[in-house]
Amino acid sequence: MQAKRNTAQLLLHCPDKPGILAEVTNFITINKGNIIYLDQYVDRLDNIFFMRIEWELEHFVIPRNKIQDYFYTLYAQKYEMSFKLYFGDELPRIAIFVSKMSHCLYDMLARYTAGEWSVEIPLIISNHPDLKHVADRFDIPYYVFPITKENKAEQEEKEMALLAENGITTIVLARYMQIISDRMIESYPNRIINIHHSFLPAFIGAKPYHQAFQRGVKIIGATSHYVTKELDAGPIIEQEVVRITHKDNPEDLVMKGKDLEKIVLSRAVQKDIERKILVYKNKTVIFN
Amino acid sequence: MQAKRNTAQLLLHCPDKPGILAEVTNFITINKGNIIYLDQYVDRLDNIFFMRIEWELEHFVIPRNKIQDYFYTLYAQKYEMSFKLYFGDELPRIAIFVSKMSHCLYDMLARYTAGEWSVEIPLIISNHPDLKHVADRFDIPYYVFPITKENKAEQEEKEMALLAENGITTIVLARYMQIISDRMIESYPNRIINIHHSFLPAFIGAKPYHQAFQRGVKIIGATSHYVTKELDAGPIIEQEVVRITHKDNPEDLVMKGKDLEKIVLSRAVQKDIERKILVYKNKTVIFN
Amino acid sequence: MQAKRNTAQLLLHCPDKPGILAEVTNFITINKGNIIYLDQYVDRLDNIFFMRIEWELEHFVIPRNKIQDYFYTLYAQKYEMSFKLYFGDELPRIAIFVSKMSHCLYDMLARYTAGEWSVEIPLIISNHPDLKHVADRFDIPYYVFPITKENKAEQEEKEMALLAENGITTIVLARYMQIISDRMIESYPNRIINIHHSFLPAFIGAKPYHQAFQRGVKIIGATSHYVTKELDAGPIIEQEVVRITHKDNPEDLVMKGKDLEKIVLSRAVQKDIERKILVYKNKTVIFN
Amino acid sequence: MQAKRNTAQLLLHCPDKPGILAEVTNFITINKGNIIYLDQYVDRLDNIFFMRIEWELEHFVIPRNKIQDYFYTLYAQKYEMSFKLYFGDELPRIAIFVSKMSHCLYDMLARYTAGEWSVEIPLIISNHPDLKHVADRFDIPYYVFPITKENKAEQEEKEMALLAENGITTIVLARYMQIISDRMIESYPNRIINIHHSFLPAFIGAKPYHQAFQRGVKIIGATSHYVTKELDAGPIIEQEVVRITHKDNPEDLVMKGKDLEKIVLSRAVQKDIERKILVYKNKTVIFN
Repeated sequence: MQAKRNTAQLLLHCPDKPGILAEVTNFITINKGNIIYLDQYVDRLDNIFFMRIEWELEHFVIPRNKIQDYFYTLYAQKYEMSFKLYFGDELPRIAIFVSKMSHCLYDMLARYTAGEWSVEIPLIISNHPDLKHVADRFDIPYYVFPITKENKAEQEEKEMALLAENGITTIVLARYMQIISDRMIESYPNRIINIHHSFLPAFIGAKPYHQAFQRGVKIIGATSHYVTKELDAGPIIEQEVVRITHKDNPEDLVMKGKDLEKIVLSRAVQKDIERKILVYKNKTVIFN
Repeated sequence: MQAKRNTAQLLLHCPDKPGILAEVTNFITINKGNIIYLDQYVDRLDNIFFMRIEWELEHFVIPRNKIQDYFYTLYAQKYEMSFKLYFGDELPRIAIFVSKMSHCLYDMLARYTAGEWSVEIPLIISNHPDLKHVADRFDIPYYVFPITKENKAEQEEKEMALLAENGITTIVLARYMQIISDRMIESYPNRIINIHHSFLPAFIGAKPYHQAFQRGVKIIGATSHYVTKELDAGPIIEQEVVRITHKDNPEDLVMKGKDLEKIVLSRAVQKDIERKILVYKNKTVIFN
Repeated sequence: MQAKRNTAQLLLHCPDKPGILAEVTNFITINKGNIIYLDQYVDRLDNIFFMRIEWELEHFVIPRNKIQDYFYTLYAQKYEMSFKLYFGDELPRIAIFVSKMSHCLYDMLARYTAGEWSVEIPLIISNHPDLKHVADRFDIPYYVFPITKENKAEQEEKEMALLAENGITTIVLARYMQIISDRMIESYPNRIINIHHSFLPAFIGAKPYHQAFQRGVKIIGATSHYVTKELDAGPIIEQEVVRITHKDNPEDLVMKGKDLEKIVLSRAVQKDIERKILVYKNKTVIFN
Repeated sequence: MQAKRNTAQLLLHCPDKPGILAEVTNFITINKGNIIYLDQYVDRLDNIFFMRIEWELEHFVIPRNKIQDYFYTLYAQKYEMSFKLYFGDELPRIAIFVSKMSHCLYDMLARYTAGEWSVEIPLIISNHPDLKHVADRFDIPYYVFPITKENKAEQEEKEMALLAENGITTIVLARYMQIISDRMIESYPNRIINIHHSFLPAFIGAKPYHQAFQRGVKIIGATSHYVTKELDAGPIIEQEVVRITHKDNPEDLVMKGKDLEKIVLSRAVQKDIERKILVYKNKTVIFN
């Protein structure tokens, strides 16, 4: 569906000052870049300017390997910008982590196989062998690293080596029922996407559907977020909810929740791989 | 809209056993009661039977002042039932408590004035004079009881006397920014309806919209519940949510939340005054 | 997940009269059937009684092959009932029809493979070879019947023979882009489930997302329904919607709509295979 | 809540060309206007640029009565722009039209009285006397123009005279059950906001809830739109939906729909009075 595109994608934020947008768009235009996407937003409370801009490189005067350097020198310094530069033809490389539930995994692989997502998924990692059959159906290598208290550090070491070997840019925890260690989180800052099966910040931690049942809520939810060191407290990317009644028992909540989880996780992954998310102050700015 | 109806309304729950439903409907039918509403539900985890049944009294053989007694003797004892009996022509009498925000108050009074609700609203109580003009527009007495730490017990005493005088059956806290004392809660068990401006149990306590903004959620909510001694922890009646984005500042959340609050509160009040809510284990069973 | 259960499942409707519910439950109980599900509903406009009841057969006195006969003789005649009797261990057998889009097919097969659904899916039928690779991943036979104006009757003949051979009880059109002939519809009355990619009755027929885009709606939807002879006019089972903005182009609507379609179709199929849907007057009564 | 602000508000659209945004923001900035709002959008299918920009006039060099002229001369001509200029301290003046249902009227007046809306509402017009008591509660003049087939043209003439006298800029049809004549529509192009009690384009015309009940939909909706000569076919501003079940009869739909109608209408009016809506090709572009 979405072919690789010969484009540059720039996400930036900086203190808002007059003229930034004009200067940046001008820089691209006069160097013969054809702008195909522009979305900007000003946080008027903190006075921060956010922008995502994408342009075609075909006739762009500056060589792609020098854009980062030029932009830093000409604008980022001047405006105290943080920015990230991506290229439309350098696809994100995702490792999916799973445990025993398959619904999120299937949903992602269906999109991937159907060509909806411009990504590569070189491997799946699990602490259990249960979902190997799913990986096999889609011809994706499946690695099992059983985790115990004793071997956790050691196993994560091996996982990280495997991730590095495969040039993984993004980790998706598709109902992976293990807490990621700080060390791995530091290696993938805002690059690990989790799905939590509650409407955060309600029902943090284990068994949120049972917590929801106990509390007698009338709506349940799911939340995808970037993983940070504090449990279930990272920047929220996407949330969705569904109505329940007193007739729903915990098992019903689990079933209804599954549909939320897979949709919410896939929406989050999609925004991430489109490079449309910018994290600021433990919150996400999501471009259209 | 809904006229007073000469009906009996029975809500009950008890351990589930075969034959309860048949016996109760039979009791009504053979005594010439015309059943116009029946909804039942079995909680199969706890094995509890819940029922709401309403029947016309016109030709009912048992005099209305003896129904309670007969039903208790014949069925409630036998089945270890808890039950409540209401009459369709004895309307709930509501006292609305407000502080300074008018949106929930207006919404309730508009429904009341339009005849949508079969209730009486004899009075409005506030800790501030600000909304007297609203009460005046609808010709409803407005009483001001300013609350301080020092006078709280004394003022609540006066409020309770006023409520008793007016035969109040139900208290609605329509964004009343005071915590109700245990004593008043005990006098109106599951008879005080509150609206909390968050998706409980997220963001309990003060300034939930600011908490929501800080956390960066993508959806906000409102929750109506019966007031119990534990803050914001009573049985939830109704919840609703609305989607927000990073572009919404706290003031935007307040504005969007207002529509949620009034709708959620009014839906809860409506279910309550229709006597379609049964509280069990700090949760609500809500009949259709 | 849901094992085969040795139960009888009875769906019925008839003119409402006092005592039906009591008699039916009594019939089951005194014959030593253990009721594990009961939901009833009275349409007070048409005065019709609807019920779904399920009971365990282990100690049931009446042999399973005589229940239909006994129930007909004892109650159905007396109350002018329409009823259907199913057994919990006789699973629905589904044929999935597809064209070229895989999202609904993947969603159904993921649920099936994960054991969420108590069904059998013996085969997939298509007018195109495109999705054979999906069927192969799940080891399900895939039959291609290319349809042209000329060969349509003949090809449907073959399809129906194949369906009959395989004991198919239910057909699911998972974005099958062909109109089903009256003859096949007559053979599977309320047994063919379709997903239409609009919020029916808006945007009937072809290219509903483009119609929605042209009209400038702010919300799009998807609708699952039983197929009847009138196009997109059969009894609606389930609908869901998602918010869009002026920024969404037709391709965005297609992408957003896909998630709706698969969720709505799978919810409908689930209700159907649980035998919780009763069709009355071109509308569905859906039990909890 | 929202005080009058000494600002200029500019809405424009034109064929997209590089530099427009930069030129316009530059024009404002170098003339000492402080930009407090900017939202832009490019329709990449039609290649149209849309923008809303608002700036403080306190130190703006160009006198407010010349801004229109300058902007036209300097930019609108050059870029073939359509634009509208408003001032933050010139409030919209709304006439509300009603028939017999009060819920939308109350909702609007509650917001108005609470100071949520920066508007003036000098008068209410009706074809029935029924809601005069509501107008009286809020001290707003209420004019009755009974409409018959015979007197329609004549009565509308009088209404239009009254509207002109009162400097009405915007007409809100708050469940006004009359069709507006072409002549009045022409006088207020995209200045008449209607609420239709269905999810358009489903159920155009009379009694949409009864149509929805007949069709057996599982979700109902409400739609606010600008009135054009074709019935219920004008540019859609806002839509919202609520889930229903087979248990809801037409009267239930009416009750549930009322909450939709008032929220949807008020959201539309709010966007309109904030001057955040731009109509293009019978569709609305709505700025954040």
